[in-house]
Amino acid sequence: MTENISVGTHSAGTGAVGSGSVGIVAPKIAHFNAPLTLKSGAVLPQFDLVYETYGTLNADKSNAVLICHALSGTHHVAGKHSEDDKYPGWWDNLVGPNKPLDTNHFFVIGVNNLGGCHGSTGAASINPATDRPWGSQFPVLTVEDWVKSQALLADYLGIQQLAAVIGGSLGGMQALQWTIAYPDRVRHALVIASAPNLTAQNMAFNEVARQAIITDPEFYGGDYYAHGVVPRRGLRIARMLGHITYLSDDAMGAKFGRVLKDGVKYSFDAEFEMESYLRYQGDKFAGEFDANTYLRMTRALDYYDPALAFEGDLSAALKHVKAKFLVVSFTSDWRFSPARSREIVKALLDNQCTVSYAEVTAAHGHDAFLMTGAQYHAILRSYLSNIEIGNNDAK
Amino acid sequence: MTENISVGTHSAGTGAVGSGSVGIVAPKIAHFNAPLTLKSGAVLPQFDLVYETYGTLNADKSNAVLICHALSGTHHVAGKHSEDDKYPGWWDNLVGPNKPLDTNHFFVIGVNNLGGCHGSTGAASINPATDRPWGSQFPVLTVEDWVKSQALLADYLGIQQLAAVIGGSLGGMQALQWTIAYPDRVRHALVIASAPNLTAQNMAFNEVARQAIITDPEFYGGDYYAHGVVPRRGLRIARMLGHITYLSDDAMGAKFGRVLKDGVKYSFDAEFEMESYLRYQGDKFAGEFDANTYLRMTRALDYYDPALAFEGDLSAALKHVKAKFLVVSFTSDWRFSPARSREIVKALLDNQCTVSYAEVTAAHGHDAFLMTGAQYHAILRSYLSNIEIGNNDAK
Repeated sequence: MTENISVGTHSAGTGAVGSGSVGIVAPKIAHFNAPLTLKSGAVLPQFDLVYETYGTLNADKSNAVLICHALSGTHHVAGKHSEDDKYPGWWDNLVGPNKPLDTNHFFVIGVNNLGGCHGSTGAASINPATDRPWGSQFPVLTVEDWVKSQALLADYLGIQQLAAVIGGSLGGMQALQWTIAYPDRVRHALVIASAPNLTAQNMAFNEVARQAIITDPEFYGGDYYAHGVVPRRGLRIARMLGHITYLSDDAMGAKFGRVLKDGVKYSFDAEFEMESYLRYQGDKFAGEFDANTYLRMTRALDYYDPALAFEGDLSAALKHVKAKFLVVSFTSDWRFSPARSREIVKALLDNQCTVSYAEVTAAHGHDAFLMTGAQYHAILRSYLSNIEIGNNDAK
Repeated sequence: MTENISVGTHSAGTGAVGSGSVGIVAPKIAHFNAPLTLKSGAVLPQFDLVYETYGTLNADKSNAVLICHALSGTHHVAGKHSEDDKYPGWWDNLVGPNKPLDTNHFFVIGVNNLGGCHGSTGAASINPATDRPWGSQFPVLTVEDWVKSQALLADYLGIQQLAAVIGGSLGGMQALQWTIAYPDRVRHALVIASAPNLTAQNMAFNEVARQAIITDPEFYGGDYYAHGVVPRRGLRIARMLGHITYLSDDAMGAKFGRVLKDGVKYSFDAEFEMESYLRYQGDKFAGEFDANTYLRMTRALDYYDPALAFEGDLSAALKHVKAKFLVVSFTSDWRFSPARSREIVKALLDNQCTVSYAEVTAAHGHDAFLMTGAQYHAILRSYLSNIEIGNNDAK
């Protein structure tokens, strides 16, 4: 059945009244020494996951919420690493005391996915078999592999069942996959701005981004670490392209329009404000992110398709799901359109799952899932505040 | 006023019944020895335009139709250059005896734009001042410059007034510009899948494409000719990206979906059909097209904005237009959406111009303007068959 969400009926209101930061946080590393067999058949002999936690795990360990990140996200979801940190974690507007995901009630876990470049084992890590960076030999990962490794992290933390898994975009796919792979280990899934698989167009954008990286002469087949260079040009193009798809046409228009910085120069310099923005974003990303990680994150997006093993029947793929769901989409998101979220809702309803669905009016496009829309955050707050803690019965 | 188009009421029907090819054609070159001052202030000391013509110019020279090409188009619109030619010209489905643009009635002109790479003077041409290729020194061009040079070609051919100018996408911008710059020299403008300027998103895609080219190590600041190389990698990425925007998401889905060529390989090879298609298109284009031309074509798209000099008031920009218009858009075109065409229609109506507007239901996206949709071609046929020849009075 679907549930109506009563926006604003919960105690804390819809705004950030009384909300605060989780403060100074520090990442931790979990070492896993047992080999992990991936969906591809490849085996990682050992691996690390870097993670952060906010709030306190309660006595019966029933208040844990896992946050899954999207393409370029990290384990650093909330708070700052030092007083001098310029920016807090990437979903700090959501997570903290009295925020929609309230750390007064929940024990929140952020984790850098396997293959990431922020501390978890990835292509830049040392391959114990060679004592050199994995590089091109690091396996291609899937959403299923990430969820499997996240379940091992939950084991490591002594958590048998998560109160919720929440993620946007690629993170939403992980939340969905949790309910498929571990129906008894997750009570609620919050699947935001996501889809049950990528469209051909989405995959095409990924392919262009990957080809920009792979054909960069400084990619060296993925073994650039040994050459002391990084494929900056390709990564920069990939990120510029990504940024276009994260915003709606209208949002780009509202943000930049056709505004010239200093008149028409009849050149190929960054004459329009929008060009400066894209170049800045591309340069910044190329200086921070690992190209091999980018390739693997986009490939995982391409491959995710739980209905594939069921002849395209998503309802069949979700047959054993027990979690309750909140599915959220944004009207202007053309990368993961509301129609794709409705496919998930429909398949869940086919299985008599409990689903709340909100199609949020938002101008920003896909990036809206990271923003502080009042309606959006009110919905999250309302849903999360209704999650019972201290009751481990699923569904 | 707007006119209703009565589809199918003209004599030749809606199909290709009795239609044929213009046959074997040969390009011609027009030399212009007078300096051409461009909008930027740069001066081309001399230039060539390569063009083709189909049909026969009538006695009073009132049956000439100019076809303006889009980003990667050429003068070779119809027919073949030899019996062995694998493909005919790029708009062969439109132009020929008994085709919608009927060469039994019209004298049709195709021209390669200035700065092009198919025979007209461009960056690969020899700069008479240096006896070397222009390369980076070739000026940045505008839609206004192209129309100015096309008017010189009309002079050269002895044509005072065109029966019509027709173009899709960037070609439609040129058709529109003709009616602004030379209100007495064009009786009809057919503006198809076009816009009065680019959106920020459109410009952003152009910027990514240009940056892929410019940052290719083999671009050499635009002077790659001297190095005996071409920036193939960048041009390939630019074209792959372009192809995504020419198709609708649905069309990509219908054409390729998520179909794998040979199962999941957990690699970055072209595993999906769509990936092979994009790579093929990118490779093909990179082997044929000039990177400096690509930069200039996209920059001309960015700059075109006739309303800019009128504080954004397109109606004011079109105040002196005398031509009659057919404006056509396609429902699934997200690059030049119907809303953008309606902006043109609205501004023309504000000036009491005669406008026919058709919003054609089509699944293919922007590329629909090059295809043979029955409704689309019937509309073009109907409109074109109603153009009077032998009457030079505009409006």
